[in-house]
Amino acid sequence: MLVVQKFGGSSVANAERLDYVAGIITESYRAGNDMVVVVSAQGDTTDELIEKAMEVNPNASKREMDMLLTAGEQMSASLLAMAIEKTGCPVVSLASWQIQIHTNSNHGNARIKNIDTDRLTAELSKKNIIIVTGFQGINRFDDITTLGRGGSDTSAVALAAALKADKCQIFTDVDGVYTADPRIVKSAKKLNEITYDEMLELATLGAKVLHNRSVEMAKKYNVELEVLSSMKRCDGTIVREVTRMEKMLIRGVAKDDDVARVSIVGLKDEPGVAFKIFSVLGQKKINVDIILQSIGRDGTKDITFTIDSAQLEATKECLQHMVDAAMCKEILCDSDVAKISLVGAGMETHPGVASAMFEALYTAGINIQMISTSEIKISVLIDKKYSKEAMVAVHDAFIK
Amino acid sequence: MLVVQKFGGSSVANAERLDYVAGIITESYRAGNDMVVVVSAQGDTTDELIEKAMEVNPNASKREMDMLLTAGEQMSASLLAMAIEKTGCPVVSLASWQIQIHTNSNHGNARIKNIDTDRLTAELSKKNIIIVTGFQGINRFDDITTLGRGGSDTSAVALAAALKADKCQIFTDVDGVYTADPRIVKSAKKLNEITYDEMLELATLGAKVLHNRSVEMAKKYNVELEVLSSMKRCDGTIVREVTRMEKMLIRGVAKDDDVARVSIVGLKDEPGVAFKIFSVLGQKKINVDIILQSIGRDGTKDITFTIDSAQLEATKECLQHMVDAAMCKEILCDSDVAKISLVGAGMETHPGVASAMFEALYTAGINIQMISTSEIKISVLIDKKYSKEAMVAVHDAFIK
Repeated sequence: MLVVQKFGGSSVANAERLDYVAGIITESYRAGNDMVVVVSAQGDTTDELIEKAMEVNPNASKREMDMLLTAGEQMSASLLAMAIEKTGCPVVSLASWQIQIHTNSNHGNARIKNIDTDRLTAELSKKNIIIVTGFQGINRFDDITTLGRGGSDTSAVALAAALKADKCQIFTDVDGVYTADPRIVKSAKKLNEITYDEMLELATLGAKVLHNRSVEMAKKYNVELEVLSSMKRCDGTIVREVTRMEKMLIRGVAKDDDVARVSIVGLKDEPGVAFKIFSVLGQKKINVDIILQSIGRDGTKDITFTIDSAQLEATKECLQHMVDAAMCKEILCDSDVAKISLVGAGMETHPGVASAMFEALYTAGINIQMISTSEIKISVLIDKKYSKEAMVAVHDAFIK
Repeated sequence: MLVVQKFGGSSVANAERLDYVAGIITESYRAGNDMVVVVSAQGDTTDELIEKAMEVNPNASKREMDMLLTAGEQMSASLLAMAIEKTGCPVVSLASWQIQIHTNSNHGNARIKNIDTDRLTAELSKKNIIIVTGFQGINRFDDITTLGRGGSDTSAVALAAALKADKCQIFTDVDGVYTADPRIVKSAKKLNEITYDEMLELATLGAKVLHNRSVEMAKKYNVELEVLSSMKRCDGTIVREVTRMEKMLIRGVAKDDDVARVSIVGLKDEPGVAFKIFSVLGQKKINVDIILQSIGRDGTKDITFTIDSAQLEATKECLQHMVDAAMCKEILCDSDVAKISLVGAGMETHPGVASAMFEALYTAGINIQMISTSEIKISVLIDKKYSKEAMVAVHDAFIK
């Protein structure tokens, strides 16, 4: 069997952790599997490198940032290879340029275009365990790129897809996907299985287990994912197209605190106004989530939407011209909000889910500011200070 | 003019030093020069990485050590590029694989075979300052190699040769080549110029300014070197084939404390004995320096030679079989010795130099254990505890 494994930064943070991880890898290798292992930079390495860069030049180019940051995975990959050498298993570490993981040129947030498999298959045929630097690739000019947040997960899935691996195991500091963050919701349960779509919604909605880009890619190439713990040996959660277990109504509850709400008040009620606003935001790469439009007074309207709170300043800047040009009355912002989402492929066929969710919040005395739904999820925007309470209330209403 | 500059680890150790170095580079760039800059890993980075590796696996393969260590120059190169970006000058950092600096496969001590200049000339024609990771290359399998001690100097000279640069400036923590180590010999003088051969002797004999491999390469490709300070702005020392200044009799005095003396006593006086000993040592890559053969008692002979003290254990191991097989009586070792060398192209035509050197040591009451000479140098082996005194005595006898 060809197995791709991925280990995050905390899983390889020091010599002891590296030895433990080397044990996981070589156990699978000795069981007869071909092994390709993707590794992130150790512990806080990336943050330390960013800090160094900030000290030298807070406005450094993204190209040079990528050149700097990717040294982190080169170090962890070679150190993990050294830990495996101790076990006597043959191993080789490879940087993304040695494999040729091709990406576009969007430094800091590049997309993988294709992966050459020649070097990989050559090393596998020599029975070498391969350690690959995650998070990175090269563009068509041979410059180093990075894949952005969750990039190592994406590297692992892309390698599994390119090599048609039988399994892609994502080792992390949690031992699977839960119905809610177990640190917040005591009654949260670990899921044995989850579909790509459900995982995608959970990932997008704030569950930090897997990055949504990697789940999207796994779905696209039908790569079976397994999320499991790099700290202890136990079964994790399998992510696949169709789950074998009895269809659960609800798969999980997620919370996203990094949300801000923006309202454009007193907008002239003319055709194309909304289009103009959102196309300007789109050009600035500001992602708008929930949108709500309502009739204001005196023939005007209000548009309210949510964004990632990190993009609040950019959004304000982007919209200021509308106030200046008297196209609207004012712009109101609020980052004391949180988004609570309920996810489950089963809810499509169960119309009562939304009302049961709203009832749970009402019973807990929590006001709903905005609502957004898709086939398999319902999200509500609430006051941030109630976010944990809301999560528990919603979770316990559905998952017993 | 095309200028290659090289900065060592202490020259780029922190943000402040990086800014200073960026100033040196951009000053030359703004004066109209094309700039290719080679950089070592920052400060103690390499030692820290070695320490990390030792913690994980003291017997790590050289291939993985090279993978690990070369992350150091990738970090310093990108950070230096960031410091230059601040000045508004266009800059790009390139790792050795991006340039394609080809070496043999001798991990940890590889030799440069050739350098592709396509990417370099393309970046230069875009008027970019190029920052190159020193100390590293790639072999024909696309694996990363390192060039061993003094590797960044070698990278700089090799790049200067490949690009036919007009100048190769080696910036270091001293401000030039002195007639002796100024920390030991107060009367030491800075040289304006020195020939390759003289520099080579001084480098080989313990002067730590330039690594001998880089000087050899500079001589071979006729690359004019300049050794200067990265800490303060002043003229350095120029290394070239023929110096323009009046021929000095003596160019400098060097001291090497890392020497050991090995004596094989009571060797049977048969043909081929010496050959066998030194061929065995050669196979183990043990470099033998001064050799002395003398007649012993009862038809036997003694062979005494000096080696790098780091290779003493390996040498003993290598020779033990001779004692075991009764091919000799015993093997004596002494690492409390030092080598003092006097270098100068002028001495070829001045037969009195050797005797004047011996006289200076005699006057200082220092006993000479072994002597070795070449056209342009005289080396003597003495008791290590007198090495500084000997250096001062010899220096002051010739250089006033």
